[in-house]
Amino acid sequence: MRLFNKVAVIGTGLIGGSLALVIKKKKLAKEVVGVTRHKASLNLALKNKVIDRGALSLDIIKGADLLILAAPVDTIIALRKKMLKFVSRDCVVTDVASTKEKIVSLLEKTFPNYVGTHPLAGSEKRGVIYAHPAIFKGSLCVLTPTAKTRGKAMKKIKALWGKAGARVIFLSPKAHDRVLSFTSHLPHAVAFSLIDSIPAKGLKFFSGGLKDTTRIAASDALLWQGIFLTNKKNMLTAIAAFEKSLRKIKSAISRNDKEKLTAILRLAQKKRNALA
Amino acid sequence: MRLFNKVAVIGTGLIGGSLALVIKKKKLAKEVVGVTRHKASLNLALKNKVIDRGALSLDIIKGADLLILAAPVDTIIALRKKMLKFVSRDCVVTDVASTKEKIVSLLEKTFPNYVGTHPLAGSEKRGVIYAHPAIFKGSLCVLTPTAKTRGKAMKKIKALWGKAGARVIFLSPKAHDRVLSFTSHLPHAVAFSLIDSIPAKGLKFFSGGLKDTTRIAASDALLWQGIFLTNKKNMLTAIAAFEKSLRKIKSAISRNDKEKLTAILRLAQKKRNALA
Repeated sequence: MRLFNKVAVIGTGLIGGSLALVIKKKKLAKEVVGVTRHKASLNLALKNKVIDRGALSLDIIKGADLLILAAPVDTIIALRKKMLKFVSRDCVVTDVASTKEKIVSLLEKTFPNYVGTHPLAGSEKRGVIYAHPAIFKGSLCVLTPTAKTRGKAMKKIKALWGKAGARVIFLSPKAHDRVLSFTSHLPHAVAFSLIDSIPAKGLKFFSGGLKDTTRIAASDALLWQGIFLTNKKNMLTAIAAFEKSLRKIKSAISRNDKEKLTAILRLAQKKRNALA
Repeated sequence: MRLFNKVAVIGTGLIGGSLALVIKKKKLAKEVVGVTRHKASLNLALKNKVIDRGALSLDIIKGADLLILAAPVDTIIALRKKMLKFVSRDCVVTDVASTKEKIVSLLEKTFPNYVGTHPLAGSEKRGVIYAHPAIFKGSLCVLTPTAKTRGKAMKKIKALWGKAGARVIFLSPKAHDRVLSFTSHLPHAVAFSLIDSIPAKGLKFFSGGLKDTTRIAASDALLWQGIFLTNKKNMLTAIAAFEKSLRKIKSAISRNDKEKLTAILRLAQKKRNALA
C-alpha cells in the first residue's frame, strides 16, 4: 500500500534506518533517500539496501512528500531552516526524537505538516548496522499532536507506524516529556551514574545484575546529553524523586530497620513484576 | 570422580538446587540430601531429582561429609548451632551467601572445616524450579579463606566449583564485601530505588531500557534485606559514591553544561563497554 511517493530520511541510524527498511519492505513509498553525516554510514546504508539513494548533503531530499528526521535533537533543530529550502509546504514532516516539547514547538512553526513521534524501540546500539524492520513490532510509538497538527498528516504518520507494527498512543508533548523523564531518561541517568561510581579495579567482579543494570550506559553520549538538556526541568524532578527513593533504602539500612527495609524492597519487587 | 560420600544441602533453591544437580550429574557424591523450609519446594526438588532424599527438618543431614548452606544469610546464622548437633567436626561446611564478613566469622567458629564461597551466578529468579547444573559455567566463584581455613577442606571446595565450571578466585571476606558492595549490592539498591521512584500510572510507557535496568528489582526482598544489612558499612559507602556520581550529572544538567555532561556520559559509556 503506497502511502508516499518519495521518502527522505535524515540520519539513517538504528531508528531512521529501521523505519526506512519498513517503508521499503512494505512498499509504502516509491523511493527512499537518505542523508547521513559520514561517508561510511552512507556507504553502509546503500550497501545494505536501507535506502535507494543517499547523499551527505541536503539537496537530495528535494521533492519528498515525507521527511523523517532521525538525527539527534540538536542536529535537527540546527538544520531545520536549511531543510525548509528543499521541501515543499505540503511535505509531511516527522521526527523520532526522545524529547518532544522543545522540538515540537520549533518544528511545527517551521513545517505546516509536522507530526512529532517517539518510538520506544531504541537501544544502546547505534548505527545503520543494527537497523532492522522488525524492531518496532509490538513496541509503543507515542504520537504528540498539538492544536496545530493537521489531521491528514497525522493520519499518514499513524498509518506508517501501524505498518511498522507499533502500538500507537497519543500524548501531548508536555505529558510525553514528563512521563518519559521517569520511564526512559531517568533510567539512563541512573545507569550512567552507576557505572561511573564503581571503582575500576573492582569491575571484573561484575555479575549479570550489574551488566543488565548498566546496559543502557553504553548508549551514545552526545545523543543523551541532548535528551537530558532538552528535558531539563522534568529530568531534575525525576532525579529528585529517585534520590528520595534511594534515601529511604539508605536510611533503613543505616538504622538496621529490617522490617522497613523488607517492606520497601517488597513493594519495589511487586512494582517491577508488573512490567509486562 | 567421587569427592564426597553424603552431601547435604540446606535450602535447595536456585543456587543450592543447581549445585546439587552438578554434584549428581558429575557423580561427585554417593548421595545428595536436601532440607527445605516448605513442603512444596521439597516435593518439587524430589520430583525434579535435584536431591535423592529430603526433609523439612535437620536430622536428615546426619552423617554428611559436605554440608552446603544455601539458605538466606539470616537463616544460616540462626540455624548454625542446631546443625552442629547433626554433623561431625570432620564435615566440610560451605555457604554461598552474597556477603561474607559476618557469616565467615561466625561459621568458622562453629565448623572447623568451613570454607566460605560466593558464586556470582544468581539472578532475580528464585526457587528450585530454576535450578540447572549449567548456571555456574564460566561464572566467577569467589572463595573467601581466612587464616583459620583448613587446606584440605579448601581443596575440596575448590574442586567442587571447578567441576561446576566456575572460575575460582580468592578474596578475603573483607575485600569481598567491599568490592561486591559496588558490583552487586549497589546495583540492587539502585534498581529497587529506580522502580520505586517511577509514578505507577506512567509505568506503561516503559521501554527495554527500564526493563533491563530494573530486572534485579524483581529479586527476593527478604534475601536482599539480609544482604544489605550484613554489608551495612560498605553499602553506605557505595551508595554515597553513587549519589556523588548522580550529583555530577544532575549538576551538569542544571547548569546546561553540554561539554561537561557529554564528557561524563562518554567516560561512563567507555567504562560500560569494558564489561566483557
